[in-house]
Amino acid sequence: MDPDSLRGFATELAEASGRALAGMFRHPDLGVETKGDDSPVTAADRYAEALLRDRILARFPDHGIVGEEFGTVAEDAEYVWVLDPIDGTISFVAGVPLFGTLIALLHAGEPILGVIHQPITRELAIGTAAGTTLNGEAVRVREDRALAEAMLLTTDPGAVGRHRDPGRFEALCARARLCRGWGDCYGYLMVASGRADIMLDPVMHPWDIAALVPVVRGAGGVITTWEGDDPVGGTSTVAAAPALHREVMHILNGTES
Amino acid sequence: MDPDSLRGFATELAEASGRALAGMFRHPDLGVETKGDDSPVTAADRYAEALLRDRILARFPDHGIVGEEFGTVAEDAEYVWVLDPIDGTISFVAGVPLFGTLIALLHAGEPILGVIHQPITRELAIGTAAGTTLNGEAVRVREDRALAEAMLLTTDPGAVGRHRDPGRFEALCARARLCRGWGDCYGYLMVASGRADIMLDPVMHPWDIAALVPVVRGAGGVITTWEGDDPVGGTSTVAAAPALHREVMHILNGTES
Repeated sequence: MDPDSLRGFATELAEASGRALAGMFRHPDLGVETKGDDSPVTAADRYAEALLRDRILARFPDHGIVGEEFGTVAEDAEYVWVLDPIDGTISFVAGVPLFGTLIALLHAGEPILGVIHQPITRELAIGTAAGTTLNGEAVRVREDRALAEAMLLTTDPGAVGRHRDPGRFEALCARARLCRGWGDCYGYLMVASGRADIMLDPVMHPWDIAALVPVVRGAGGVITTWEGDDPVGGTSTVAAAPALHREVMHILNGTES
Repeated sequence: MDPDSLRGFATELAEASGRALAGMFRHPDLGVETKGDDSPVTAADRYAEALLRDRILARFPDHGIVGEEFGTVAEDAEYVWVLDPIDGTISFVAGVPLFGTLIALLHAGEPILGVIHQPITRELAIGTAAGTTLNGEAVRVREDRALAEAMLLTTDPGAVGRHRDPGRFEALCARARLCRGWGDCYGYLMVASGRADIMLDPVMHPWDIAALVPVVRGAGGVITTWEGDDPVGGTSTVAAAPALHREVMHILNGTES
């Protein structure tokens, strides 16, 4: 299956879940619960995932689905969709419009289509091997920024210190032009659309990573784990343009020459 | 002059500048220039400040004005308005909807009215000694959060390390529940409206501070410099509910008992 033939379907999925989420954003009763891993979940997460699963299985009844809220069906299928209806539930609950929806299609375990949708800021990124678009226009990472001119993004600066060497992250922050916390999937969309230069998260769930990979790579960027490995199935992510990514990896891993 | 009698006028000011800024947001040619202090400025900053000054002087011709882009008139007047048309120009230029407009009215040097307006997320906070409203509804800081349950915000986590003891900030991050970078004035609006618990910036321009003070204090919060002094005329800010603010100050200043 050519993933580019699914761009229209991916847009329909994003728009349908986005309408649902926008309607629930800042609702006075979000039905917030805390899951086993201490992360929040709301009625909106479940509603959006349910409608995505329903639409996918209506069109592709033999595909598998991995969803954060409703678990896994047919995970050994040739094609498997990976869904995170609200990446950034903390942002959603706080009424901050930077959360997004992640949709990935895997073929034999490899993500071949990635969708990052920001339903409130109205930005839809779709990535395949053929390229990445933002609201239908081709986008690229910016390749001309030295580290001293770079904008660095991360979701939770405190989490870096808890999970990694805080001194190396501090050194990276000090050498970048500035750091911002426009986090969760929005940071990867920002890098892929050439509006920020580095996005990193020291700890990730695998289902949060799959959709990011085609979006970043399709825009000419590099995305790996913190150690430089393939991020698919990993638990951390660093995304940037190729030359900058190499420099960042050296700083984060203490391997500068 | 009763500052609460100016809530309607403050709303008109915010809506007028907000319409202008929303119309220019994500425009392909923002006319970005770099100022002497290495911060960006756009045609939108200047346009919004010009219309604010025009409306203020049309109604209050004997008032003074301090504006980031067009300088100072009558700064010795009894009443002086302090304007920052785009607090978060880096966010505005990057197409991220978290920038805001700051409007303060000083009486004999003390801010008696503060406005934080987020024109894209459509959140208007107005604070006076009588209280703080968000889109017309009274709001309060949340006073029931221990540090271990608190959401900590800052604009640039890298800036903390450049200007303050990074170990103390790291310790604060580690003891808070989580940290986010929903920065610039939006962080103070989040604390004042009970959606986050601590907002701090290690370096501020005085004109960025004046509007924050009535908004945070009117919501029952405390706002001081990093050292615990009156923030008006200072160059840093820490905002939180009273008990949490005391705890944060002890950690940041190394004075825990």
